[in-house]
Amino acid sequence: MPVMNDEVPDEGDYDAGRARGEFDNITPEDFIHGGGSGHSNPPGWLGREDIGRIRRQVPIPYVEIVPVRTDDLGRVSQVGSLLRVSENGSIERTLVTGRVLFHETLREAIARNIAKDLGDIALPLLPASLQPFTVAEFFPTPSLSEYYDPRQHAIALCFVVPIAGDCKPQDETLDVEWVDPKSELMETFISQMTNGHDRIVRQALAWAGV
Amino acid sequence: MPVMNDEVPDEGDYDAGRARGEFDNITPEDFIHGGGSGHSNPPGWLGREDIGRIRRQVPIPYVEIVPVRTDDLGRVSQVGSLLRVSENGSIERTLVTGRVLFHETLREAIARNIAKDLGDIALPLLPASLQPFTVAEFFPTPSLSEYYDPRQHAIALCFVVPIAGDCKPQDETLDVEWVDPKSELMETFISQMTNGHDRIVRQALAWAGV
Amino acid sequence: MPVMNDEVPDEGDYDAGRARGEFDNITPEDFIHGGGSGHSNPPGWLGREDIGRIRRQVPIPYVEIVPVRTDDLGRVSQVGSLLRVSENGSIERTLVTGRVLFHETLREAIARNIAKDLGDIALPLLPASLQPFTVAEFFPTPSLSEYYDPRQHAIALCFVVPIAGDCKPQDETLDVEWVDPKSELMETFISQMTNGHDRIVRQALAWAGV
Amino acid sequence: MPVMNDEVPDEGDYDAGRARGEFDNITPEDFIHGGGSGHSNPPGWLGREDIGRIRRQVPIPYVEIVPVRTDDLGRVSQVGSLLRVSENGSIERTLVTGRVLFHETLREAIARNIAKDLGDIALPLLPASLQPFTVAEFFPTPSLSEYYDPRQHAIALCFVVPIAGDCKPQDETLDVEWVDPKSELMETFISQMTNGHDRIVRQALAWAGV
Repeated sequence: MPVMNDEVPDEGDYDAGRARGEFDNITPEDFIHGGGSGHSNPPGWLGREDIGRIRRQVPIPYVEIVPVRTDDLGRVSQVGSLLRVSENGSIERTLVTGRVLFHETLREAIARNIAKDLGDIALPLLPASLQPFTVAEFFPTPSLSEYYDPRQHAIALCFVVPIAGDCKPQDETLDVEWVDPKSELMETFISQMTNGHDRIVRQALAWAGV
Repeated sequence: MPVMNDEVPDEGDYDAGRARGEFDNITPEDFIHGGGSGHSNPPGWLGREDIGRIRRQVPIPYVEIVPVRTDDLGRVSQVGSLLRVSENGSIERTLVTGRVLFHETLREAIARNIAKDLGDIALPLLPASLQPFTVAEFFPTPSLSEYYDPRQHAIALCFVVPIAGDCKPQDETLDVEWVDPKSELMETFISQMTNGHDRIVRQALAWAGV
Repeated sequence: MPVMNDEVPDEGDYDAGRARGEFDNITPEDFIHGGGSGHSNPPGWLGREDIGRIRRQVPIPYVEIVPVRTDDLGRVSQVGSLLRVSENGSIERTLVTGRVLFHETLREAIARNIAKDLGDIALPLLPASLQPFTVAEFFPTPSLSEYYDPRQHAIALCFVVPIAGDCKPQDETLDVEWVDPKSELMETFISQMTNGHDRIVRQALAWAGV
Repeated sequence: MPVMNDEVPDEGDYDAGRARGEFDNITPEDFIHGGGSGHSNPPGWLGREDIGRIRRQVPIPYVEIVPVRTDDLGRVSQVGSLLRVSENGSIERTLVTGRVLFHETLREAIARNIAKDLGDIALPLLPASLQPFTVAEFFPTPSLSEYYDPRQHAIALCFVVPIAGDCKPQDETLDVEWVDPKSELMETFISQMTNGHDRIVRQALAWAGV
């Protein structure tokens, strides 16, 4: 069953709250200006119809974050993944991901999405450079690419972000699980990721030299 | 005076053809499906109103290419820049840049934009990896970032692409000029670029070790 | 049986010619200055004893190249590997690799090692930037790292280099074989590589997004 | 006047202690095994003659670190540089730099050199990936490259490392100074660096998007 959050409706990265229809009478401007009715949506947030239409017209920029724990020499000692309730009600394993909002910097998008999924005291150590370790192109056509997103054509800039603080699952996130990248469990976790997120983890580990 | 091209109206990267109004009765779908009336617009091309509206709602993904000539050891021996007629009729120096269209891969966007500006026999050597040397975030608010684009919030993935063939200017491009990155003329050319494109050239040269 | 090459003794990347002893009366300076007796060793080449001693005192800088064929959009369509006779007489699959010589640039080292293994008309397209996709640290202690080199502590800067020309095996190289990175044969080839070169190919493919 | 440190003689990155001759009767093995006479040299440390000879025969692998302070979004807010006494007794501005010792990993070399120059509570945040932002090739011939090192041919892997703790100058380091990369003082500091270290700072800032 989807986890709801009536105060801060998520725009629809995983759309768990999308079926509710409670925002049908709110104009996009409410969301763009971040205002209205006590909702604390970030500026740039769009209504369901608007984002739905735009998603059929232009590629949508995303950030995708592989959260890691590192040791004192910077080596990746643990890789984090999220358990979430997907649109169809099943549980899925995924990464921290979300679209970049209008007038939001990439760094703000990374920090906002980490806070949304891992909580406010995760203390992410954002990279000094915005050079992503890879760019994943998700297409709504299954066969076109190994990255598949039925909702949209998304261009995801992928970053490895060390997490120095404590994580507590937020919103639709049921749990955050950490695993040693050299353990057998890592393979199990990767195999549970779908639509190309598994590939992104493998590329992150290759890039980090694990 | 803007250079027009009646057969292949450009969607508006520099909007030279935007004032004509001749497409007002063409629906966005015509452009999304790349069809209609003998026009050879690429699939994903959008009408003026559609792209204008979307540009106020979401960040737009771009590719920005620094064309270079390299010697037999791969060192950058020349850097290319374009002379174009800007929207206000003045001549500006810029790079090869364009937005990524719906359902278009980054590689296709790079190749298409190079062909559009440098012609079909430029023989670009696209990089083996899509890891950009930097990501430039253009905002419509002048003070927010050193990258400024009055039309939109654009997220530009920046690549250095060696050009092995011959270039002939296309469409709104008046000329393609090459300059030795170690010459004094390089500084002059960079100083003629505006809105952050100068920064991108400097970052490209730093990345290439010139 | 090792393949010998009396005219151009290889310094010992694979040391096939090292047992001969024919250079015992040639001083290191002969090699450093690239001279002497009709031999065409490159400047910086060291005698067996010298390089052997140094290898126990400092890490040795290497370049390691994954040769690829790319299509017109820059995507890796084939990955090359070499079949060589190893020191113990068995045949091994490996990459293009060699140490950087004194007073030699990285670009020269890359070009020289490609020419040594793939011939003079391989037409390698060296990268515009010297940022390696990874750095592999080989240690002479088997358990210390997944990269193992019994001869030395080597620090290998790893590059993917597209090959545009024709290859003909040189020196100790018996054959150059190309394989589609998406084919099953790729896995077979990778599994035949040892001492960490398999890892480097995997990291190259992850970096190239294959 | 050079700053001496009798307890932990530095091998000679800046050779302040090299003129003393007090180690003439210590064999290289003492240093390779890190032992002897109460000295706490790291394993792999070489005697003056040994390292001097090797420096004329092979390129020497180095790490070069640009220390930075970052804000909570990972942006570089300050760049650190060191004031040191050079071999000829003058004061020079430089970065954290040192060679990689035999059997030492790059991460250990980065951590050791930061501790050597900035102290034990600097709390450096080493990068998750060993992909350097650039590789600087120093040659002993002034005209060959913009990176010049009269002692040797050095291949320096360059990293930006955020410093989270407190710095206190160590050994030959007189002071550690921090400057806002957007301030005018940054240009002054860069202009005070010589032999190519200025270039490395510029490349670091370009890579970090400052």
